[in-house]
Amino acid sequence: MKEESIEFIKSGGVTAPRGYLASGISCGIKPGKKSDLALVVSQHLADIAGVFTQNKVKAAPVIVSMQRVKKGKARAVVVNSGNANACTGSRGIEDAEKMATVTASFLGCSPDEVCVCSTGRIGVYLPMKKIIRGIEKACKQLNVEGGKDAAEAIMTTDTVPKQAALKVKIEDKEIIIGGMAKGAGMIAPNLATTLGIITTDAALSPEYLNSVLHSCVQETFNRISIDGDTSTNDTILVFSNGLAKNTTIGMDSPQKGIFKNALRLVLDRLAREVLEDGEGVTKVVEIFVQGAASDKEAELVARSIGNSLLVKCSWNGEDPNWGRILCAIGYSGANVDQNKIDLFYNGFQVVASGVRTETKESLIKKTVKMPMFSLLIDLHIGSGQYRFFTTDISERYVRINKGE
Amino acid sequence: MKEESIEFIKSGGVTAPRGYLASGISCGIKPGKKSDLALVVSQHLADIAGVFTQNKVKAAPVIVSMQRVKKGKARAVVVNSGNANACTGSRGIEDAEKMATVTASFLGCSPDEVCVCSTGRIGVYLPMKKIIRGIEKACKQLNVEGGKDAAEAIMTTDTVPKQAALKVKIEDKEIIIGGMAKGAGMIAPNLATTLGIITTDAALSPEYLNSVLHSCVQETFNRISIDGDTSTNDTILVFSNGLAKNTTIGMDSPQKGIFKNALRLVLDRLAREVLEDGEGVTKVVEIFVQGAASDKEAELVARSIGNSLLVKCSWNGEDPNWGRILCAIGYSGANVDQNKIDLFYNGFQVVASGVRTETKESLIKKTVKMPMFSLLIDLHIGSGQYRFFTTDISERYVRINKGE
Repeated sequence: MKEESIEFIKSGGVTAPRGYLASGISCGIKPGKKSDLALVVSQHLADIAGVFTQNKVKAAPVIVSMQRVKKGKARAVVVNSGNANACTGSRGIEDAEKMATVTASFLGCSPDEVCVCSTGRIGVYLPMKKIIRGIEKACKQLNVEGGKDAAEAIMTTDTVPKQAALKVKIEDKEIIIGGMAKGAGMIAPNLATTLGIITTDAALSPEYLNSVLHSCVQETFNRISIDGDTSTNDTILVFSNGLAKNTTIGMDSPQKGIFKNALRLVLDRLAREVLEDGEGVTKVVEIFVQGAASDKEAELVARSIGNSLLVKCSWNGEDPNWGRILCAIGYSGANVDQNKIDLFYNGFQVVASGVRTETKESLIKKTVKMPMFSLLIDLHIGSGQYRFFTTDISERYVRINKGE
Repeated sequence: MKEESIEFIKSGGVTAPRGYLASGISCGIKPGKKSDLALVVSQHLADIAGVFTQNKVKAAPVIVSMQRVKKGKARAVVVNSGNANACTGSRGIEDAEKMATVTASFLGCSPDEVCVCSTGRIGVYLPMKKIIRGIEKACKQLNVEGGKDAAEAIMTTDTVPKQAALKVKIEDKEIIIGGMAKGAGMIAPNLATTLGIITTDAALSPEYLNSVLHSCVQETFNRISIDGDTSTNDTILVFSNGLAKNTTIGMDSPQKGIFKNALRLVLDRLAREVLEDGEGVTKVVEIFVQGAASDKEAELVARSIGNSLLVKCSWNGEDPNWGRILCAIGYSGANVDQNKIDLFYNGFQVVASGVRTETKESLIKKTVKMPMFSLLIDLHIGSGQYRFFTTDISERYVRINKGE
């Protein structure tokens, strides 16, 4: 895996790879929003894979897109913001199917080949007249530079569109991967809808496409939220159309490491952008736990700290309240000996064997004033470890989430 | 169980039962606080029982008091606020033992007979000189009407002292139960320290005392916080000195139902006071889940809703956001069919079989404007049920918890 062969494409998104068109338009779902409907189209029938919410209450578009992913082939995805089409019963399913049918009729493909995503308020029926008119408009505006418009149209309380794209040489072929995402209410312990649409012109076996997406999501988007605390609508889709004409990468290809690394980098960048643009976020914190009885126990500790409301409040106040962190470690459910715990902020040791060190308070305070810092916990019990990313929580988060 | 035989004692607290003295004084742990050290003393050696934090990181006073409770006998409990004496290593244990020894020397009893509680900032050593002088002062001020002073001294960010007391006739004897508590950061998913000290003049067998305390705490204090999300210092202690001279109530006494009901009422009142006085709380919400596959699954659903940050934010904004509630039900981990869920706010059905009913939005909005309302969820899967109490979350909560 030579990192040198990877080159990020500035301002690139879903239309960076060969053979993809996109658009983003306004159809008036949520008044005052610049745009609220996005379309991403592969000019050739593409292989697809997807990762969906684990929530047992699944929105209609999730149910519909899961069927498409099961078949493994698609031409397009249509996405609306402003309305989640969740908890809308059989009418919701009909509406999501209608979005696919209308899109397919304009593109001249089968409705089975169109995925659907929605994000926004739960429990309200879609304004289908507006959406149908919107899909027509979006189809007319499809173009090879439409990635950014699409990325803008899927935003909800996001403040900036989130895109990433890169080129990677595999043998003598240049492969491109692009993507867009939305997040916003990404602050644990509740995850507002995360959407991610990834496109690539690489040729990949369907089995490998599915496998590599799952493992990359596990290492990126799943490290910035709580297991199970997913919204009704979370969806990450990847399209691969093979136009780069590389030798197809399969489960046993020597090239699969290079591709995986590239895909992980795109997802990682999108996940970081989502985190940094979280509602009311002022700090991004990397938590690394080591010395746990197992990796699973390290994860319990990392998530317990990263989701502690009291810890997150203290970071917002730029207070390195390590006492609250030890408390969160204690109730994490992991095997812990309070007299063995070490804790470091950006390399400064604050706690040694469970008690405060002599490290100057002013040094630690300086650390938590930064917009990004790291927290290292060593439990000194075993060799389990886990890395997790979280944020502070602010009064602004509460303000944003008080109403709609 | 005749409820008629129970009579609440207005403004009564830990000194309401026969044979108890208390005091609350200032020793200057936290500058500007009116008082910060409380003492409760039984004039006769009492039987004791206790419920302690499940957190694996336990404060020194918890470790010390657990030893006293194991022996089952005590004369007093000394409590300080402003400093949790947690994560203070062996010096913390020595300090907690010293608090017991100093108290015992003034009371003329064994240090083994003195319990210790602390609440406040984690990870700072106790100012022992001030505390020793404070204990002397508190011992001098012990009196039969000191309950309220003690209840005030244990407050941290509480805005009102929390006390309850009642009389209950058992056979021809009048038994009195009194209590005090502190809470404040009681808003899940993180529980700041809860302390509760209960006194009674009832004669109870040690075995029954322990059993009835555990079952009553389970039905009261444990219904307003998350399992395991307990602080490093949570402690609930009960003293029973037998001065009411009733026939000792044991595990098989016919009278045990009456006593349990009375103790439960005292704990319930204290728990409610703690909830209503939670940091920044504007709403108290009762969640009742029925129709779950088991009681345990009903509990999962109730806690998932009651601890959802997004749900709590919406209540703060007086928005009956049932979509977020369905989302929290979906990720609770319980067995759920989204097409069967019914949801009622104060009896108004908002969701039937997973979709919105025709109930007027204005009626539901009026409900969530109230300072207290109830939420009923029916999963229509089995017969499991669970009741849970929670609150909204406000910008003020974040503000309070930003710094110390």
